[in-house]
Amino acid sequence: MSGIRTPDHDPDHVRILARLSGIVGPRHVLGGADAAPFCTDWRGLFTGTALAVVRPADAAQVAACVAACAAAGVAVVPQGGNTGLCGGATPQGGEIVLSLGRLNRVRDVDTVDLVMEVEAGVTLQATRLAADSAGLDLPLGIASEGSAQIGGVLATNAGGTATLRYGTARDLALGLEVVLADGRIWHGLRRLRKDNTGIALTKLFVGSEGTLGIITAACLRLVPAARAREVAFVAVASPEAALGLLGLLRRADGAALAAFEYISGAALRLALAQIEGLIDPLGTAAGHYVLVEMSSPRAEAALAPVLEAVLAEALEGGLVTDAVLAASEAQRTGLWRLRETLTEAQQRAGATVKNDISVPISRIPDFLRQAAVVCEARVPGLGVVPFGHFGDGNIHFNLMVPDASAAEDLMHAVGEVARGMGGSFSAEHGVGQLKTGLLAAWRGGVEMDMFAAIKGALDPRGVLNPGKILASTSRT
Amino acid sequence: MSGIRTPDHDPDHVRILARLSGIVGPRHVLGGADAAPFCTDWRGLFTGTALAVVRPADAAQVAACVAACAAAGVAVVPQGGNTGLCGGATPQGGEIVLSLGRLNRVRDVDTVDLVMEVEAGVTLQATRLAADSAGLDLPLGIASEGSAQIGGVLATNAGGTATLRYGTARDLALGLEVVLADGRIWHGLRRLRKDNTGIALTKLFVGSEGTLGIITAACLRLVPAARAREVAFVAVASPEAALGLLGLLRRADGAALAAFEYISGAALRLALAQIEGLIDPLGTAAGHYVLVEMSSPRAEAALAPVLEAVLAEALEGGLVTDAVLAASEAQRTGLWRLRETLTEAQQRAGATVKNDISVPISRIPDFLRQAAVVCEARVPGLGVVPFGHFGDGNIHFNLMVPDASAAEDLMHAVGEVARGMGGSFSAEHGVGQLKTGLLAAWRGGVEMDMFAAIKGALDPRGVLNPGKILASTSRT
Repeated sequence: MSGIRTPDHDPDHVRILARLSGIVGPRHVLGGADAAPFCTDWRGLFTGTALAVVRPADAAQVAACVAACAAAGVAVVPQGGNTGLCGGATPQGGEIVLSLGRLNRVRDVDTVDLVMEVEAGVTLQATRLAADSAGLDLPLGIASEGSAQIGGVLATNAGGTATLRYGTARDLALGLEVVLADGRIWHGLRRLRKDNTGIALTKLFVGSEGTLGIITAACLRLVPAARAREVAFVAVASPEAALGLLGLLRRADGAALAAFEYISGAALRLALAQIEGLIDPLGTAAGHYVLVEMSSPRAEAALAPVLEAVLAEALEGGLVTDAVLAASEAQRTGLWRLRETLTEAQQRAGATVKNDISVPISRIPDFLRQAAVVCEARVPGLGVVPFGHFGDGNIHFNLMVPDASAAEDLMHAVGEVARGMGGSFSAEHGVGQLKTGLLAAWRGGVEMDMFAAIKGALDPRGVLNPGKILASTSRT
Repeated sequence: MSGIRTPDHDPDHVRILARLSGIVGPRHVLGGADAAPFCTDWRGLFTGTALAVVRPADAAQVAACVAACAAAGVAVVPQGGNTGLCGGATPQGGEIVLSLGRLNRVRDVDTVDLVMEVEAGVTLQATRLAADSAGLDLPLGIASEGSAQIGGVLATNAGGTATLRYGTARDLALGLEVVLADGRIWHGLRRLRKDNTGIALTKLFVGSEGTLGIITAACLRLVPAARAREVAFVAVASPEAALGLLGLLRRADGAALAAFEYISGAALRLALAQIEGLIDPLGTAAGHYVLVEMSSPRAEAALAPVLEAVLAEALEGGLVTDAVLAASEAQRTGLWRLRETLTEAQQRAGATVKNDISVPISRIPDFLRQAAVVCEARVPGLGVVPFGHFGDGNIHFNLMVPDASAAEDLMHAVGEVARGMGGSFSAEHGVGQLKTGLLAAWRGGVEMDMFAAIKGALDPRGVLNPGKILASTSRT
């Protein structure tokens, strides 16, 4: 089972634990059963061992802990809400897990600068609520927002359903406070829209999965909250038709297009079967659906006529076979639930192979077709239940399989299809420890050399999150 | 004068020039008077010496040249259109200038993916025209677009008048092709909206001013071209009133707000005096003006009533004292000329001290006031002619001075005001060789150490653009 090593009488370990206990207080150093939940990722793919789980209260304590660990030759695994999908926050063997949940203050929401400053351990949901209560929006929507913490959201450069218009977490990060591998703190909490003084450290730390530094606070860009919203659920004739519909929407009002999410017919039927209370908003089953949202900060923006006109044109042209436009907030929420419950539905239905592919948007139809062919050739009769962020080129090409034995082979095969199209094997989930092999295989010499060189420059002793992104890092 | 060392019979130099000549062909190795324009920046602040100016034809030749220079222990200065404002593309002493103008193909414009692939030496103007002829827009507007080349635009992370909605060059770069310090090529020309496979190398190279690698091609994000536009020229009661107007516009339709540019009354009057054909669109002189643009890709977007309603409310509330809304494309162009000719007008009027400050948007009024006070205390009677990208917090706090002797002191004093507000001394112009001292003074130990560590990781022998961003780099 989960792997805190107890009892542990190694004198070196006793010494570092005493030191950490002195920094954060004894009740914030967890071992045994208390520590177990921190040593397994939430999908249960990885379980590691840790010397202890340490819960610092602020950046100064994080810095002191890292310095102590570096001095003792013990590696550190930063962890937020432990909602990652690639094991990036799970220890491998004998590290200290630094759990950042006590750094949980929203420091400031500025309605003139459209910026908020928030500590790493605040959940995404709490962060968004703080923005919302100031009439603003942090445009980042991921399923795990109730547990995911801002530090982890930034460390993995989370994406989600709002990236079509506003980009990923990296695009929203204006400045950071980061504890470095030597225990120093970088005070980079700038609130500037433009700052060309030196290379882009903030952009570099975002998405580095805790391997270059530990994010302890961030300044995030906010946008005016949407005050007009229209949501449609649309059955399209084919993936190509979905692409055509996307083009029509862009031409009609690309600036108002907030989401363009794809749901395969099989994924929708699985959700309807697994999740209570879901209702199929369209009468007849289709092979492919799209959820469209348009929104505007302007309450009077007349988006419904625009969306209706596009859908009418698309029906006329045979791209769309059926569509419904939500007439109330309750209906909008209902349509979004169809999309948001897909992961849970697949989880409930049993063994799933997950994928997190992206390809150039124009290649999505080819990708969906070819990936289905290669998977069915490998495991005849498997369930192909893809969905995802069509407007970003990001498809979760998930599969329902009788048992998990073929999982790696299938993941690899789907990846190769995307690779042939100039795609990515990880659009938004990161690399963690799950995909280090894929990273090395896909990216090859020049790029891997740069990754290793930058890792070596900022963490020469391999203190921070070893074995993540890069399979092997030099250890202290 | 300019500084090619000719005649030069140093056998090492003869050898490397022969080698470079073999790579690019003798007529693409320039010396003497031919090379002189490449050895001085366009403002004439810096003149360096170079062994030669070499004009490679493609990325392979760039790579071969860099490898040859690295082997010979000669440093390389990449140069695009030579329009930079901080001397970042000007050699200091004995480097090879690699001029990238022959890498001038627009490789592809994809109207489905909304991406274009373009080589480093294409001018920004030609790049934008290629996008435009496909019904798309590359939203980057800088005054030097006719000469500035994409490679330099990316290397300096250029900003300009379109960043309010779409961000800077970094935000538009999806993938890059880069020649590294050892002469290898990184083929990172991805066209993906989302790709979380390893750290953000593209974001790192953009803005690194040629010190980490030489960008030879890029995949850039495009947006649907605006098909509805409204431009207003507005006299505001004060900088605070401008801030109030910005708030009203955001609330009215923040998504359509494309530009919010500030022009001080003194800057406008100088432009009217210096530039033929400029017309003051408002009858009476004011202390502060704002140029507002709203735009939408939707031809039917009724932006004029929105803008008129906001201006009426602002007039009512005393924020705005006068305003005019352009009624035709010719009038829109005329209003924009007032903004676009400011730099040229100041250049013509004589000695200018330029600044490129950014502060949090909320601090702009305080900044304008305090900066004027400190400058007038230093040089009584000097001309304070600020303008800039108010909506981004980026003010060019320019000064007209009787002679240049006080320039550095004034630049420093203005900087200190911004620094006290959490600002930046270089919002969009970069560091180059002009501001290396400021960078070190402002950013201090932790940040400078990271810059140096990453420079050392990617260019351990100091081959690429030495003396830029970091004043001293280890040389081969």
